[in-house]
Amino acid sequence: MDRVEGQLSQEHSEVLADLRTAWSVMSPDERVDALKLLPEDEAEEFFLALTGREQAQLLCCLPNLTKRTWLRLLPLDDAADVIQEAPLAARDELLKLLDDVSLKEVRALLAYAEDEAGGLMNPRFARLRPEMTVDEAILYLRKQAQQKDRPIYYCYVLDAEQKLKGVLSFRQLLTAPANKRIEEVMVQEVVTVAEDLDQEKIAPLFTSHTFVALPVVDAQGRMKGVVTAEDIVGVVQEEATEDIQKLAGIQALEAPYLATGFAAMVRKRAGWLAALFFGELLTIHAMQRFEAELDRIAMLAFFVPLILASGGNTGSQSSTLVIRALALGEVRIPDWWRVFRRELVVVGSLGAILGLIGLAYVLVSHLCGIDYTEEYLTFAVVIAGSLVGVMTFGGLLGTSLPFLLRLCRLDPATACSPFVATLSDVTGLLIYFTVATHLLRDKLL
Amino acid sequence: MDRVEGQLSQEHSEVLADLRTAWSVMSPDERVDALKLLPEDEAEEFFLALTGREQAQLLCCLPNLTKRTWLRLLPLDDAADVIQEAPLAARDELLKLLDDVSLKEVRALLAYAEDEAGGLMNPRFARLRPEMTVDEAILYLRKQAQQKDRPIYYCYVLDAEQKLKGVLSFRQLLTAPANKRIEEVMVQEVVTVAEDLDQEKIAPLFTSHTFVALPVVDAQGRMKGVVTAEDIVGVVQEEATEDIQKLAGIQALEAPYLATGFAAMVRKRAGWLAALFFGELLTIHAMQRFEAELDRIAMLAFFVPLILASGGNTGSQSSTLVIRALALGEVRIPDWWRVFRRELVVVGSLGAILGLIGLAYVLVSHLCGIDYTEEYLTFAVVIAGSLVGVMTFGGLLGTSLPFLLRLCRLDPATACSPFVATLSDVTGLLIYFTVATHLLRDKLL
Repeated sequence: MDRVEGQLSQEHSEVLADLRTAWSVMSPDERVDALKLLPEDEAEEFFLALTGREQAQLLCCLPNLTKRTWLRLLPLDDAADVIQEAPLAARDELLKLLDDVSLKEVRALLAYAEDEAGGLMNPRFARLRPEMTVDEAILYLRKQAQQKDRPIYYCYVLDAEQKLKGVLSFRQLLTAPANKRIEEVMVQEVVTVAEDLDQEKIAPLFTSHTFVALPVVDAQGRMKGVVTAEDIVGVVQEEATEDIQKLAGIQALEAPYLATGFAAMVRKRAGWLAALFFGELLTIHAMQRFEAELDRIAMLAFFVPLILASGGNTGSQSSTLVIRALALGEVRIPDWWRVFRRELVVVGSLGAILGLIGLAYVLVSHLCGIDYTEEYLTFAVVIAGSLVGVMTFGGLLGTSLPFLLRLCRLDPATACSPFVATLSDVTGLLIYFTVATHLLRDKLL
Repeated sequence: MDRVEGQLSQEHSEVLADLRTAWSVMSPDERVDALKLLPEDEAEEFFLALTGREQAQLLCCLPNLTKRTWLRLLPLDDAADVIQEAPLAARDELLKLLDDVSLKEVRALLAYAEDEAGGLMNPRFARLRPEMTVDEAILYLRKQAQQKDRPIYYCYVLDAEQKLKGVLSFRQLLTAPANKRIEEVMVQEVVTVAEDLDQEKIAPLFTSHTFVALPVVDAQGRMKGVVTAEDIVGVVQEEATEDIQKLAGIQALEAPYLATGFAAMVRKRAGWLAALFFGELLTIHAMQRFEAELDRIAMLAFFVPLILASGGNTGSQSSTLVIRALALGEVRIPDWWRVFRRELVVVGSLGAILGLIGLAYVLVSHLCGIDYTEEYLTFAVVIAGSLVGVMTFGGLLGTSLPFLLRLCRLDPATACSPFVATLSDVTGLLIYFTVATHLLRDKLL
């Protein structure tokens, strides 16, 4: 491929990228028309790159003949996803478009949950018997390989009961002495994935080993299919997006941003906002408890947003770090005490730094002729002390909540930043006004 | 492999997982001792699963002979990473441990930035000439393949100038007629990666195609190496972690949570906290402007945390959604107007929902005998109106900032939730007090 061709395909891929972006807001008819304008191979490439849901929507609008061709383009695991995403009424019709062998395999895949290893795997893979010779194996593969299938990177050695005995890469097979038996040259220690393993737990297997595909086995060790690293790239991205959205107090959207409808968008955001609102109502009562003090020193109120925001920000930092570390398995429940002590020291120090800045601010204001109270020195200490207290407490709240949620077998990402900030707002007000009334009582109140 | 073996390897992998978690807090000597206790193959597996930085730290503490064995275990791209992570003084020593051919290749890899395609790729791959026959090619590969290398999944067809002409999977090679020439059976349209492409942009190529490996080429179309999907799983996870940390106002940590030292942790968090603190100081001035009103109706202050938190939460939701959509390429700069309009309607509706809840709260309080002012009806309208205004403005701020940052070629994730919340605090106070003074002036002020 020379440079000119490279540039041409660059332009093509920009056209495809534009279409990809516009896709979610196009009507079904517009989509079908847009695809007709593309050369056949590009249309196929574009179709393969859509999500399962989008493929399902598109297939339902196509004429039957095209529908069959395109459905058969898909690897079987993706075909199963598409059928799962299609409306109930359309599923049987789509299943009928598959050939008999594929139909049986797709039906088996549909029995798995979408986010289990079994739901991600491709049920077709290259099988060898342990007693074959290397030469026989190569001949066998050359005879039975089907071009239409997804490329396969390893040969799996199964016994008569379909139990996985070993594995060989194509490269190892090619370079092995021709007369050796497969069981003599295969790798016997195989890293396997249980068929009901959650997809989140598969990614670490790929990051900690250098495999591009892993075999999926059932409880009896019988091989069911293959999960490839390239399936997992999408899973990792999806899971990260879900976590990021949850961290901001949004229920995970199931579709790309522009493809999510107005009603779904409001529904997925209003719940948390309303819950946080009810939590935040407690701040009104917290402030009411100190009505007398506020009446006498109104400028106590001036510093409320500053102090609460600092506590909330510190809490978000801690909860985000702990939630991500838990998600990646860098930290586990038994580590909670170590993490808690670490965060105590870190957020205490951060509180001290901002406390000093707050102290300096009140003193510099005094030098500039702005006095919030006559007792500016005591007031400076109130601000500094409150910042240390509120930030330390906020940080520890953010550290503990994810562990507590994980302990209750809930998703730690539910301890989203706004939730931690709300809790820290309520407690922060109590800390601030308690410090203020104790230090200023004798002098001003 | 039968079930019993499966369970045994399960236990083994738990021992390894425990060691993995404890690793970051162990001293160099403890690490070397811990590895000595493991069987050789498990120690190797464990070593391979460490990050480049950890591998570098470990290698520096090992005796020279072991150092050489372990360094040579690594695929060349990982070896280059390790050498990059080692202290400057140790680099030459490590380079000397490589054999001549590897040394040359590793030096070439070291010239790439770590986060470019060139820095991720493995420079060893299977090459074929277009004029070979299929049989010759298979013989050639069987002769030259080196077992120690990372398994390779495709054969790349290069001309005499090393320009990439086509590609063949091992499976396609095995199933092709023996007498055909390679150029007749190879796939000519190859998806390639430019050597200086940022690693973030490689992931979409794997999610939108079903390849487990992609060839890396230079500006002249000469092939330089191979990037595999399994390299990208780690990259995607790293990038997501960085984004999640930035969203919470933390500079991306370069190491796992427990491996990040106290000083680095404070440094990476204090900067944003202090910057946000200075921003939040503006809230004091905003409240001071309304000192007279606050003096007369102190309970105006009671609702400040509630209203500011609602604005901040809405802003975080919007900015998070837009930042993630931009990162995944679901949304691009030209879409800003479409996104802006969508968010205007969504956050306006969310504001209306919470406004109604706020209105109901003041009215129910009145029925329960708690009156914040005598003019409880007007006050209820003030709260509802402020919520609509503050939340709409907060949401639009969260929508616009990521686009502006992207337009200035900065990372949109810098528009982190706390930053949006701080801006929305300052403007929120102005909105709230302006609404309040206008509606309540005639009646109370």
